[in-house]
Amino acid sequence: MFVLVNLKAYDCDAVAIAEAAAEVATDADARIAVAPQAVDLAAVAETGVETFAQHVSPNGHGSHTGSTLADAVAQYADGTLLNHSERRLRLADIDASIEAAHDAGLETVVCANNPEQIAAVTALGPDAVAVEPPELIGTGVSVASADPDIVEGAVAAAGDVDPSVDVFCGAGISTGDDVLAARDLDARGVLLASGVAKADDPRAALEALVAGL
Amino acid sequence: MFVLVNLKAYDCDAVAIAEAAAEVATDADARIAVAPQAVDLAAVAETGVETFAQHVSPNGHGSHTGSTLADAVAQYADGTLLNHSERRLRLADIDASIEAAHDAGLETVVCANNPEQIAAVTALGPDAVAVEPPELIGTGVSVASADPDIVEGAVAAAGDVDPSVDVFCGAGISTGDDVLAARDLDARGVLLASGVAKADDPRAALEALVAGL
Amino acid sequence: MFVLVNLKAYDCDAVAIAEAAAEVATDADARIAVAPQAVDLAAVAETGVETFAQHVSPNGHGSHTGSTLADAVAQYADGTLLNHSERRLRLADIDASIEAAHDAGLETVVCANNPEQIAAVTALGPDAVAVEPPELIGTGVSVASADPDIVEGAVAAAGDVDPSVDVFCGAGISTGDDVLAARDLDARGVLLASGVAKADDPRAALEALVAGL
Amino acid sequence: MFVLVNLKAYDCDAVAIAEAAAEVATDADARIAVAPQAVDLAAVAETGVETFAQHVSPNGHGSHTGSTLADAVAQYADGTLLNHSERRLRLADIDASIEAAHDAGLETVVCANNPEQIAAVTALGPDAVAVEPPELIGTGVSVASADPDIVEGAVAAAGDVDPSVDVFCGAGISTGDDVLAARDLDARGVLLASGVAKADDPRAALEALVAGL
Repeated sequence: MFVLVNLKAYDCDAVAIAEAAAEVATDADARIAVAPQAVDLAAVAETGVETFAQHVSPNGHGSHTGSTLADAVAQYADGTLLNHSERRLRLADIDASIEAAHDAGLETVVCANNPEQIAAVTALGPDAVAVEPPELIGTGVSVASADPDIVEGAVAAAGDVDPSVDVFCGAGISTGDDVLAARDLDARGVLLASGVAKADDPRAALEALVAGL
Repeated sequence: MFVLVNLKAYDCDAVAIAEAAAEVATDADARIAVAPQAVDLAAVAETGVETFAQHVSPNGHGSHTGSTLADAVAQYADGTLLNHSERRLRLADIDASIEAAHDAGLETVVCANNPEQIAAVTALGPDAVAVEPPELIGTGVSVASADPDIVEGAVAAAGDVDPSVDVFCGAGISTGDDVLAARDLDARGVLLASGVAKADDPRAALEALVAGL
Repeated sequence: MFVLVNLKAYDCDAVAIAEAAAEVATDADARIAVAPQAVDLAAVAETGVETFAQHVSPNGHGSHTGSTLADAVAQYADGTLLNHSERRLRLADIDASIEAAHDAGLETVVCANNPEQIAAVTALGPDAVAVEPPELIGTGVSVASADPDIVEGAVAAAGDVDPSVDVFCGAGISTGDDVLAARDLDARGVLLASGVAKADDPRAALEALVAGL
Repeated sequence: MFVLVNLKAYDCDAVAIAEAAAEVATDADARIAVAPQAVDLAAVAETGVETFAQHVSPNGHGSHTGSTLADAVAQYADGTLLNHSERRLRLADIDASIEAAHDAGLETVVCANNPEQIAAVTALGPDAVAVEPPELIGTGVSVASADPDIVEGAVAAAGDVDPSVDVFCGAGISTGDDVLAARDLDARGVLLASGVAKADDPRAALEALVAGL
């Protein structure tokens, strides 16, 4: 199981969380990555934790102001989220961003709302897809518990299109039980945010997440 | 073969073109539809021609200013284009727009750039998809002649995901030979614009398009 | 005072409201306009009521799919809203849309959130600006009562930049008293929506709005 | 005169250019800043050069994925560009981004196309505005030479609204003569990109720019 922690634009200490994540990953022999804002990618990567961007531009080098290029991200990061529900992309831009990310050597995890959209993004050839029903994001109610049909539907939908694409489970993940429930539904990873980034003790939250693996 | 004429925002006489299209369709026993700006849907539909919108909003009724709702379009139109390269949508909005259109009884034709994106939009359940390589739009060079591999790839990609979804062929279609070439590649329709809308004699252009069918 | 009724994408009978508005305007010798969805502009204008679009594109004629051009709107409408809080535009597009609207002979009413933004849009040369604090939209709490400072600030800000530009007052207007309160703050018009469009009796709502004028 | 070098998404060595800019600024006693991609802000600031972001989000801390917050930028940078023609913002977002930037202690330079838009953005209270006619960007033809009326118009328009806001001159600046021409038109700074970022010898390009000051 892959635990991908999206720090969003939370008022948190990205480097401290990254250090904790790096240590918990080593201690538990688990795969944990941290996705900070673009500005913080260098400092987060410096901790040794697996580092993801929250987004990369579909553009290549050129006259683009205010973009975050895959090539620039790849100086520090290992992968990138794409099409998060808070940063929805046009279909053609998801396609181009996946290609730009892969050309730069970045792993791609593309978010979508439901099994139909999961099938759609799977067809674009990412490394993984993450199903996040928008109505559960930030609720603390895990999609794996509240709506297992969506996770199973996403796993089936992605498998029909391309069985080599992993399915992650997002929205409402906050406990170790949520992670195990996701695994039981054949998800290969979880995507979470506030459960770690806004925790009083992010290290304890991370340890709890991977304890059962 | 379905001939779908997108009038875009061209400076043309939408009603005159619609009247010509209605007559040519009847005379040739061909299926021809006209897609004007939203403002012109009522007047175009009045001619009796099959009428498409160029876009519908993913929203339902509510506090949305400046939107074009599927329900409002369905008063006059039979279907709608979605995700044209000049009106690219976010993936989640393509999904919601298809659903809103179908709920309103509209047929849906969703555009995309390449076979991978065709597979992606096919997974969202539209009635048809149209492959339009952006580099050929408006060139007068038909994709069916210049790049038959893309059309064949699109037909194969859509068929793998859902064989009930038709594939149309856009970009550069302007002659009857282009229509026949598209049909020979197993496209079930063509999407064109300037070839009719900017023709000196739109009726003659339409007649030429369907002459070989 | 100008009463501008935005029908948004509400599930209402646009033509019936337009007919009522035309009659109330005549009976009360008041200026009332109705702004339906683009699809309904022709039918609304047919009633004889003053007709506004909810938005027009910054583009001129050309290869633009899914746009609503000022020229197309001007076949039926007298003016247009721009930059409503539900259809926020980029600054350069507000500028271009105002120009396109004026070239087509449309009157322009540009919305903004606060006095600073009112000053900004006034500098672009519209016919009128409408101040709508987003937190009051749809509340039924009138900005003229709840936050008279914002209206006074908007009138002052617009006047400093260009005294020929009228200031309208939006957000929460639903009664005749709200209209009079707006007038007392030197607003030259009101912009409202649900107070008429979702009223059980839109004609009675319109009559009440203009009764005190 | 302030020389602000936008590195856009060019394939250039941001740190090497920053080092050269820091040294040229010191040697010439000139004010030179460098605006890299967000990912590179930390490394560029490390060189000691004055550092600008190319954009900051209108959002504050919270559930925003793929944003670049003013607070995150302010860890490293001294200021930010906003509303560049390659990253046009909605008016309400320019307003909110200026406020977010100022709250974070960042200086703001807001771009616009023409004198009317310059007046509009000046009303929002930035530290400076930059006039960049889109048709001259990247041409190597300086706006100060090709279209001095636009620069004079921008200086006059900004001065009418708020004389404390500086006017910079962008688009086509590449030589020391361009900088002097801009100064002669009462611009207080220049905004340029390819003239330095794509120069064979960026240091020499920078030295030439400030040589006449």
